[in-house]
This record gives sequence, C-alpha cells and structure tokens, in this order.
Amino acid sequence: MSELKIAVLGVGMMGADHVARITARISGARVVVVNDYLTDKAEAIAAGIPGCRAIADPLDAIADPEVDAVVLATPGPTHEKQLLACLEHGKPVLCEKPLTTDVESSLAVVKAEAALGKRLIQVGFMRRFDHEYVQLKSLLDAGEFGEPLVLHCVHRNPAVPPNFDSSMIVRDSLVHEVDVTRFLFDEEIVSVQIIRPAANPGAPQGLQDPQIAVFKTASGKHVDVEVFVTTGVAYEVRTELVGEKGSAFIGLDVGLVRKGAPGTWGGQITPSFKERFGQAYDTEFQRWVDAVKAGVNVDGPSAWDGYAAATVCEAGVESLNTGQPVEVKLVDRASITGA
Amino acid sequence: MSELKIAVLGVGMMGADHVARITARISGARVVVVNDYLTDKAEAIAAGIPGCRAIADPLDAIADPEVDAVVLATPGPTHEKQLLACLEHGKPVLCEKPLTTDVESSLAVVKAEAALGKRLIQVGFMRRFDHEYVQLKSLLDAGEFGEPLVLHCVHRNPAVPPNFDSSMIVRDSLVHEVDVTRFLFDEEIVSVQIIRPAANPGAPQGLQDPQIAVFKTASGKHVDVEVFVTTGVAYEVRTELVGEKGSAFIGLDVGLVRKGAPGTWGGQITPSFKERFGQAYDTEFQRWVDAVKAGVNVDGPSAWDGYAAATVCEAGVESLNTGQPVEVKLVDRASITGA
Amino acid sequence: MSELKIAVLGVGMMGADHVARITARISGARVVVVNDYLTDKAEAIAAGIPGCRAIADPLDAIADPEVDAVVLATPGPTHEKQLLACLEHGKPVLCEKPLTTDVESSLAVVKAEAALGKRLIQVGFMRRFDHEYVQLKSLLDAGEFGEPLVLHCVHRNPAVPPNFDSSMIVRDSLVHEVDVTRFLFDEEIVSVQIIRPAANPGAPQGLQDPQIAVFKTASGKHVDVEVFVTTGVAYEVRTELVGEKGSAFIGLDVGLVRKGAPGTWGGQITPSFKERFGQAYDTEFQRWVDAVKAGVNVDGPSAWDGYAAATVCEAGVESLNTGQPVEVKLVDRASITGA
Amino acid sequence: MSELKIAVLGVGMMGADHVARITARISGARVVVVNDYLTDKAEAIAAGIPGCRAIADPLDAIADPEVDAVVLATPGPTHEKQLLACLEHGKPVLCEKPLTTDVESSLAVVKAEAALGKRLIQVGFMRRFDHEYVQLKSLLDAGEFGEPLVLHCVHRNPAVPPNFDSSMIVRDSLVHEVDVTRFLFDEEIVSVQIIRPAANPGAPQGLQDPQIAVFKTASGKHVDVEVFVTTGVAYEVRTELVGEKGSAFIGLDVGLVRKGAPGTWGGQITPSFKERFGQAYDTEFQRWVDAVKAGVNVDGPSAWDGYAAATVCEAGVESLNTGQPVEVKLVDRASITGA
Repeated sequence: MSELKIAVLGVGMMGADHVARITARISGARVVVVNDYLTDKAEAIAAGIPGCRAIADPLDAIADPEVDAVVLATPGPTHEKQLLACLEHGKPVLCEKPLTTDVESSLAVVKAEAALGKRLIQVGFMRRFDHEYVQLKSLLDAGEFGEPLVLHCVHRNPAVPPNFDSSMIVRDSLVHEVDVTRFLFDEEIVSVQIIRPAANPGAPQGLQDPQIAVFKTASGKHVDVEVFVTTGVAYEVRTELVGEKGSAFIGLDVGLVRKGAPGTWGGQITPSFKERFGQAYDTEFQRWVDAVKAGVNVDGPSAWDGYAAATVCEAGVESLNTGQPVEVKLVDRASITGA
Repeated sequence: MSELKIAVLGVGMMGADHVARITARISGARVVVVNDYLTDKAEAIAAGIPGCRAIADPLDAIADPEVDAVVLATPGPTHEKQLLACLEHGKPVLCEKPLTTDVESSLAVVKAEAALGKRLIQVGFMRRFDHEYVQLKSLLDAGEFGEPLVLHCVHRNPAVPPNFDSSMIVRDSLVHEVDVTRFLFDEEIVSVQIIRPAANPGAPQGLQDPQIAVFKTASGKHVDVEVFVTTGVAYEVRTELVGEKGSAFIGLDVGLVRKGAPGTWGGQITPSFKERFGQAYDTEFQRWVDAVKAGVNVDGPSAWDGYAAATVCEAGVESLNTGQPVEVKLVDRASITGA
Repeated sequence: MSELKIAVLGVGMMGADHVARITARISGARVVVVNDYLTDKAEAIAAGIPGCRAIADPLDAIADPEVDAVVLATPGPTHEKQLLACLEHGKPVLCEKPLTTDVESSLAVVKAEAALGKRLIQVGFMRRFDHEYVQLKSLLDAGEFGEPLVLHCVHRNPAVPPNFDSSMIVRDSLVHEVDVTRFLFDEEIVSVQIIRPAANPGAPQGLQDPQIAVFKTASGKHVDVEVFVTTGVAYEVRTELVGEKGSAFIGLDVGLVRKGAPGTWGGQITPSFKERFGQAYDTEFQRWVDAVKAGVNVDGPSAWDGYAAATVCEAGVESLNTGQPVEVKLVDRASITGA
Repeated sequence: MSELKIAVLGVGMMGADHVARITARISGARVVVVNDYLTDKAEAIAAGIPGCRAIADPLDAIADPEVDAVVLATPGPTHEKQLLACLEHGKPVLCEKPLTTDVESSLAVVKAEAALGKRLIQVGFMRRFDHEYVQLKSLLDAGEFGEPLVLHCVHRNPAVPPNFDSSMIVRDSLVHEVDVTRFLFDEEIVSVQIIRPAANPGAPQGLQDPQIAVFKTASGKHVDVEVFVTTGVAYEVRTELVGEKGSAFIGLDVGLVRKGAPGTWGGQITPSFKERFGQAYDTEFQRWVDAVKAGVNVDGPSAWDGYAAATVCEAGVESLNTGQPVEVKLVDRASITGA
C-alpha cells in the first residue's frame, strides 16, 4: 500500500486539525473523504485538498471503496453506530475519545471487535504518544522508581464552553487521567471517589469546579487528580509519579525564560492542548497510519482501553453525586478478548 | 530586661539544637538552665555554657527564680504538667509540638491559660516563620490568588526511627500540614480522611506508608497531603496553593545546579529539616525572645493552635483505622478565650 | 506541482537523515535521486524508497530532468561546483552549511546567483527554524527587550571526531553562533576575536578547546561565545540575550525531572543536535519544500548569509592564530544583490 | 574574652546595617563605639544601643581602650590612614572593600601588616561566605569538575547613584568578580581587558554600561564578566563554572513560583544585595568575631586579597580607556609576607 487513503468523519475543531495533520504534517497517508453533519463545511474542506471528496452520510463515507481507514472525530453519541460500521466493513478506525458515551455501548463495541477476531479499533488517548509520558513510562518499566506507589495529577484549563457541566469534567477532562493511570500502571482502576471542594467563584453558576478525583488501582496504588477547568490562567497538565526508589515530574512549563522589570523572571504556560500535545497527535497519527499499512491496524489504546475509561468515568459521575468512593466493575477481559 | 534568661527542658537532638541556637545564633537571650531526664547530658551541656546550670527536676527548672522563660523540648507526654507549671509561675513558654499528646489535655491547657487571662504559651510550628510560607501567606492575604480553593502538600522523609508507627505519621509528620492549612487559610479543618495506598515495599513491616490525607475546611476548601516517610531520597516539603486567580508553588529544590557526565543536570535535595527550616527556627526563637522581652509573650502559634492540631490529628488517627472521613469537633473558641 | 521531486547529494549521517526526513516526516515532497561518492551506500538507500534512483555523478544528479530541487549534504569543498550547477540548471537548492569553505568562492556563488536575477539558494542554518530562537527573535522584534545590547552563547559538544582541529571549531561549530548573531540582530559582524584559554586536559593533544569568541556588530553590540567541543557531558546550546529592558534565556535543559537517591534531583541534557534541533530541521525542510513549490525557492538563510558566515569564520581563524581582534570585511551587498 | 567590643566607623547604609547585624543577628559581640563624619547620625545610633558611645574622631575611636576590634565602613579614601592606625594599636579590623583606593597605598598596608608579623586585617569580600559560592568552591576543590577552565559571571544592578562613573563600574562592581575569580581558582589574575559594547540607551549620558571584562589567570584560565548596572530589572549575580568534567551554575532566581493570568509563570528576582547576600554578611561577621576572640584575627580575605583586587581593578580602568588587554603586575608575595 503506497499511501493510506483516509476518511475523516467530523470536521469540527478537532477533525479539521486532523485533516491538516494528515495532509501536511505526516507522511504516507492522505485524506480522500471528509464528512460532517454541516455539509457545507465538509464541502469547503474537501475542495481544498487534491483528490478529496465530501460524502454527506457518515456510513456511506465508511463504506466507500476508496477508503482504506477511518478517523472518527464525530460527537460521542454517534460513535457506537460508526464504530460498528467500521468493524462491519473491516476498516481500521482511529476513534477520538470517548469510545462511546456509556459503559454498555462501549462493551458492545469491544465484544463486536472481539467476535471479529481482528483488531481494528484504536482510541485517541494521545498522551501515550507524548514524549514526556513515554519517557516516564519507559523509566518506570525499567525499574528506575522501584515499585510505583502514588500518582499526583493536575489538569487545568483556562476556560470551558458555556454548556460544560460538572459531569463533563469527569467524562471529558478526567478521562485523560484515567487513561494515564491505566497506561502508566498497566492495571485497572477499582474505585473512584470525586471530592467536591467549594467552587471557584469565577466558575459558571452550578459548575462543580475544581473537582478532586481519587483512584485506587487493583494493586492498591493511589492516584489523585485535581481537575480545574475555569482557572483563567492557561492549559496545565502535570504528573508526578512517586515510587519506592524516587519520584519524577513531567509537565513543567519551562522554555524561554525572561527577566524583566520590575524584578520578575518567568516564562509562558502552554496556552492550549494544541501546543502541549501537538507532537503527540502527530506521532499518534503517524504510528496509526504505519500500523494500518502494515496490516496490524492498532498501535495504541484499544477498544478495551476505551471501554475501561468509560466504566471509570461512569463510576466517577456517580461519585460526583454521592461524594462516596464508587467501585469500578469491569467485565472479565479474558472472557471477551482472550487476552 | 537586658537579656532573656531561658531554661531549656529536654536536650535531645532538638533541644540541644535550641540551646546552640539561643547561645550562638540569636541575640538578646541566653540559656541559664538546662534539664534532661539524662542528667549527665544536661550537666555536660551546662558545663559548656558560661553561667548555665543543670537542674535535675523539670518543675524545679521552671520554678527557678533566675529563669525568665522556658523552652520545652521534652517528650510530648510530659508537656501537660510542664505547661501547667509554666502557667502557674507566670513564665512564658515556647513549647515544641505537640502541645500535648491528646485532645483532652490540650484543651485543659488552653482553658488554664484562658483562665489566667494572659497569653504565655507559644507552640513550635516553625513553618510560620519560614520565608517561603511567609511569602505565600502574604501574597494570599493581599488577594493575589483571589479566593484560595485547593492546597496540595507533599511531606517526605528519607527514613524514620525504628519505633515510628502509622499513627505517628499522623501525629508527628502530618501535624505540620495541619498547621500550614490553618495558618494559610485562617480557618479550622472540619473533616479528615486518611487514605491507605499499598505500602512502600521498602518500609518497615506493618507501617502504613505512604499515607494520603484529605482535609476539608470550614468554608469547604480542599487540602490533600502525601506523607511518605521512608522514601530513601531526602527531605522534601512542597506546597502548591491553587486559587481563583492563579497558583503558587513553594519548596522547589533549586540552588547550585550542576551539569556533568553522562549527560545529566541537577542539584541536591535539602537533606533534612535542619537545612530546610533552620532559618525558620532561628526567626521563631528570635521573635519569641523579643515578644517575651516586650511582655507580650507570644508571637506565633498559640495554645489554641496546638489544641486544634491535636484534635485534627486525633480525627486523622481514627480515619487511618476506618478509611472514612472523620469529622473534627472543636469546642467553641469564644467560650474559652473570648476571642 | 503536486509533489516536489528532490535529489539528495551526500548520504552520510546528515544526508541520510535528510532522506528519512523528506520520506517520513514532511509532506509534499519525495526523494527521487540520491548520490554519494560511496556509490554502494547511495544504491542501498535508493533501493529502500519507492521510485528513487541512485545516480553516481553529482552533476548528473543535479541535471536529471526528473529532479525539481536539490539538497546538498556533500562535503564543503564540493559545494561551489555543485551550487553553480544548480544555478545553471535553475534548480532550487537547500545547501547544508557551509555555503563554501572559503570567502572567495562564497562570494563567487553569491554573485552568480545575483547575476541570474533569481533566488535559488537556501543555506541550512536550521536554528532559525527552532521554536526557541523563533520565539526569542519574535519578542526582540516586538520591542520586548528594548534595544538589544549583549548576547551570551554557549555551544558545547561531548566529543568530536579525531580529525577535528582548532580551526574547525571556528568553521563548523562557531559558525552557528555567527548566524544566530546575524539572525537575531539583523546586522553584520564587524570584528572577531578568539581567546585561547588553557586547553581542556581531556581534549586531544594540540586542540585549542575551549575557545572564547568575541564578536562586535556594526552598531556596537557585543556577543561572546564559549565553544567547547570535548566536554564529555552532552550537547548544550544556550543563548542569553540582554537588552535595555530585560533579558531572556533559551536552551535550558528542563523536561522530565527526577528525584532519587541519594538526595539528588535533576534531568537529562539533550544528548545531541538531533534531539535538540530535530524539529528545526523538519520545519526548515517543510518550509523550503513549500517555498520551492510556490516558486519563491528560498524561505530561510540566503547565499548572502552563507557568504557572510564564511567571511566571519575566516576572520575567526585568523584571530585564533593571532589572539587579536580581526576586522570582518564584507563586500558591499547592494552592489551585488541590489538589496 | 566573653564578648567582643567593636567600634564601627562609618554608619552610612552599609555601616548602619553592620551595627544592626552585630547587635541583633550575631552573637558574641557588641558595638561599643560608633563614629561617622556626620556626628549627629553617630550620636543617634549610639543612643539606641545600651553601652554604646559616639566618638567624633575615627582615630580616637580606633585608639579607645574599650575597643577590642574595628569595623571600617568609611569611604575608601580614608581607609589607608585608619588601617594603619588599627595596625599601630594592634586592633583586628574588618575592612569593607576596597582595601584602599589605589595600588600603592594597598601595597603599603600589606607591607605594614607584614612588618608587624601578625595578621590583623580582613577585607569584606562577603561572597566567600555565601552558601552558594562556598558550595561551588567545595565541589571544585573536591575535584568534582576536574580542572576548572572557564568562568562566566554576570553582575547586574537595576540602577546606580547619579555620580556613578565608568571607572566605578570597574572598581566597585567588577571588583567582586575579581575576588570571586581569585577565591575559586586560588591563583592571581594576570591580564584584564575591558570591552565597551554600545551603551544602554537607558544609562546616564557618558556612562559606559554594560561593560564586558575578560580576565586571564596565571595558569591560563579564562573568565568573562558582564557588568551591567542600569538594567532597570533587579539585582542579578550569577556564576557558571566550566570544568574538564562538567559545569555548575549558581545564582539562579528560584523560590516561590507563581502561575497567573494571562498564561504566565515565574518568580521574583532578588531585589538587592541585602536579600542576596544578607546571610553571607552575617556569616562573615560571625566568623570574624569568632576569629578575633580566638586570637587569630582573620578568617577570610586578607590584606593581600585587598591589594590584589586593587591592582586588577587599576589594570581594568586602564583597559576601559584603551580597550586593549592590560597586564596585571603584582609584587612578589613571598618577599613581603613570607607566604
């Protein structure tokens, strides 16, 4: 396969960025089909790319014979149907998180892929491709910290859209730390507790922000996460791993450092996820393209990882309401995937 | 009063350091009496200081007419009796934490001082005198962070003595963060939860280490603390305050930075509390000496602060056993002190 | 032009890396011809790339009708002839530094291009594409530092090949700081002094290492550079700009930061120029490809920049021998380029 | 000797600070005499210290039988006479830099002390007592950097008084780096070159600021210093030592680090030398007091160190005028001191 021909479904902010990524920043692939429920937008984007068409129906786009593989950047509620269509047509798919928006449908997708006996679904947890997380994971696996014990995470956004509600903080923001935990520790999260501090006076009325999440993993490791999405400051993602033999920090904001009047020094905080994780998205896409061309289809988080994240987030939303630790119940993995 | 004449009770590691501090590092005071249950040790120290005597009985030392003021560095269980003796003789006392080892006796001391109608007791929470905490508090009070919302604390020791048990982690280590919280936020802690992660394999058998403490304050602020006393690394005390308008970090380990083979850069972590908080101890003692000479007797944490810390720690020990959040019940302050 | 077809001349370490860059990391271009004086190596590389041929003679490679543009990664002494061939065939060329190895031939190339009345030559000073230098330049141009006054540069390598001599430190290492100076200040260097400190005992016998270079620019700005190529440590490139209204640092080595026994914290120094400037090379190539496809051919350092660097380095080598400041004599630019 | 009785001559900003230092921050000494050409000021200060008198004539103050030792914080031009008086009366003296204001008189003082056969003079180069310089020196002496090769120094002030001229930048500011060089390398400086970059537009008319100094030491080590005294920013003193086996930085400005809107992080630069070197002054005085009480009189920079600094600065002023390297000619030390 000389060049992987990709259909991108959903060309909102994220999807349009992925189209640009495939077209201009990675090699070995090109976008041949775009789709969006805003058909004008899809038409406009297709017009700017040689050999690219807009197709109005997402399922038609998936089924199109020119299409080798699919990128899903559509709204979460449409994912289940589109993922099942990808499986049906045997098309590898890179699906932006979440896998689906609830546990039941996530599990259904995992089972459908398992029944097919072939891995086709990769989930877009791009931090696994970020060089700092990769370095941290690599040191951890090499035993540099001994047994890992505790993980402290901070996830801050300067602002969120008006419709962002308290449970979306769990499902859309915290979900990244769910995957970071599972990635770093290679084990499942068994309970979640969401603590509700007094809210930021600057947050929209009714939004529980900040939130503190506490995870316990299967072997008893502790993870705490501050999620704070109305800081007014910048995009801050920071992780400290504490192990038996030392600790490590990633996500410090250092780069160009200035000294200026009156007596201050400092730098800039990463303004948004694009600057922070742009390299990770590029790497994720390049490796997925390479994996699809090589016929292995997945080189990153699997459908199971998407299902596990959905299950933890659902428990998180329950804890957001009750304040109590909530047990995370995953089905037996081996019974489905044989893994 | 030209020079404050001090009796130091207890000349173990801490007390001997205080003797050296008063003798060589601060001005306006000198040690005229030392006392220790190891009388030889007290005799030896007294012999090295011009005009200083050893007195075998701690209550005699307090009552001695030459003694203007008392420093208590004796074991916690003896504090109640010694503090009451100081009150009886009207002698200002700087008492190393804890005030006393349980809530009931702490409250008794607070009441006895209140009944006297005169403040004589200062508790040795020296972080209130550390320039970084002072700077953080000052920015906070100036409104630089808007409303404070969350506090993340890390308290790590390389190692602890063999007899150090899980509840001592709460009473002797966590207690500092109890006071930091109360100092920074100027409000009481209303509940404590101690989370028990899987223990450090390098910790002594049976020791619950690390521990994660979660505090809720009266106005709903959230505080989390990692206490980890067998890291094998160094002494690390770090605090991040997160507010409505920004955040701040103290306790970074920067100083001399080296680059060396093979391809690494870095510095040294503060080896122990002496290097980290030596300046704070000096300032604490100097300001206490000045306060006593000026007749106000206290310029720092009061008996109430000692009682409040004891109460929070007792709730912490209960939570250590149950894993559940435990409510902190303080008596009504105004009913006792009129404050 | 749908895809730019490139001949890469010279496939040593640098050239082979450029082949990989064009093939796998940037879009819109592909390698159709490779050439090397080691013909076997060229053949092997060509075999691994679909649609790519090896051509034994560099001038044939340049002249080949399939070739749209040329990347020169051949040894410096061959550049003049190859650049003139590119001009003759009207082919855009991205030439690794140096433009040529002496002032006379550099000037001849500048004049030949000027006579053609068309810009075809871009020189590979990749730091101009590094995000930190770009950010520094952008703040400087925005007036954030007021008038720039002083530049401190450090350029360190862990080791150099056995044949590396004292004048190569000037021509191959210092040359980057020559271009950084000219890029940041937008003015020419008018004198150079090379100071010879006592040599590193660990350096090969006879190698003057470290060297301290002092530049004076047309408007009197001062630049000092430590070049030290046998540090045994790592690749360190650091620049501090000092201006009327403040200063700024780039090239700090921060990223993942570890704390570990016994009491130390720190990170890794960038091991080599590949990690430090890989992004800059990618950006440089992508922008050059885009410029060639757009018909403007150059989007970066020009032949003049290559000539100016050669002239400064020649003065530097003279100063290395005499220890005295040496005046830099550039021909009148307007008389050649009309610029 | 129970308490060292000190006369402080000169109670301007520096001298008044030393009075406070002896009175309130160090132990084992007290101020019994103060002197200033502004007699009212001396009277006022004496009035605030129990047992302290003002004496109008500096030579009377030195001669006063109650006075055990002398601190000189008088203007430089008066030092020679006062130092000789101290020698005459056999009184230990801690003399603020400079030893004297010219080479001839400095040498005369060195010779007079040598003739006496007893060390009485310590010069106030307080950086030798700063914990960062001490740590750097200690690592260097332990061989941690192998052979030291290069030293980069930065010395910046936000502003200087109106009468500060170009040669004072050499004599009053650069002199500290002269001593740092001699302290770290334990060898003499053999040549000085002052480079004059285009001046800061914000500097007073006629002031050559910044200046770049280049030192060569006896064994050929290279030192460069940026002295910039009208930065408008803050007090910045930074030193990087580069050795055969690695390098080290001191003087970074890290402490409390804030993140705040809009998207920036950073801290405060040390506002002045009092914050940066307050600890060094305290240590310097404490150690000098201890040395005098122990009868060794000097525990820090000697008269020779003051003479050497004066000689280097005089060469520096000559180079400031000529721009050329100027040789530093010291008399033969052994011929005077026998050391």
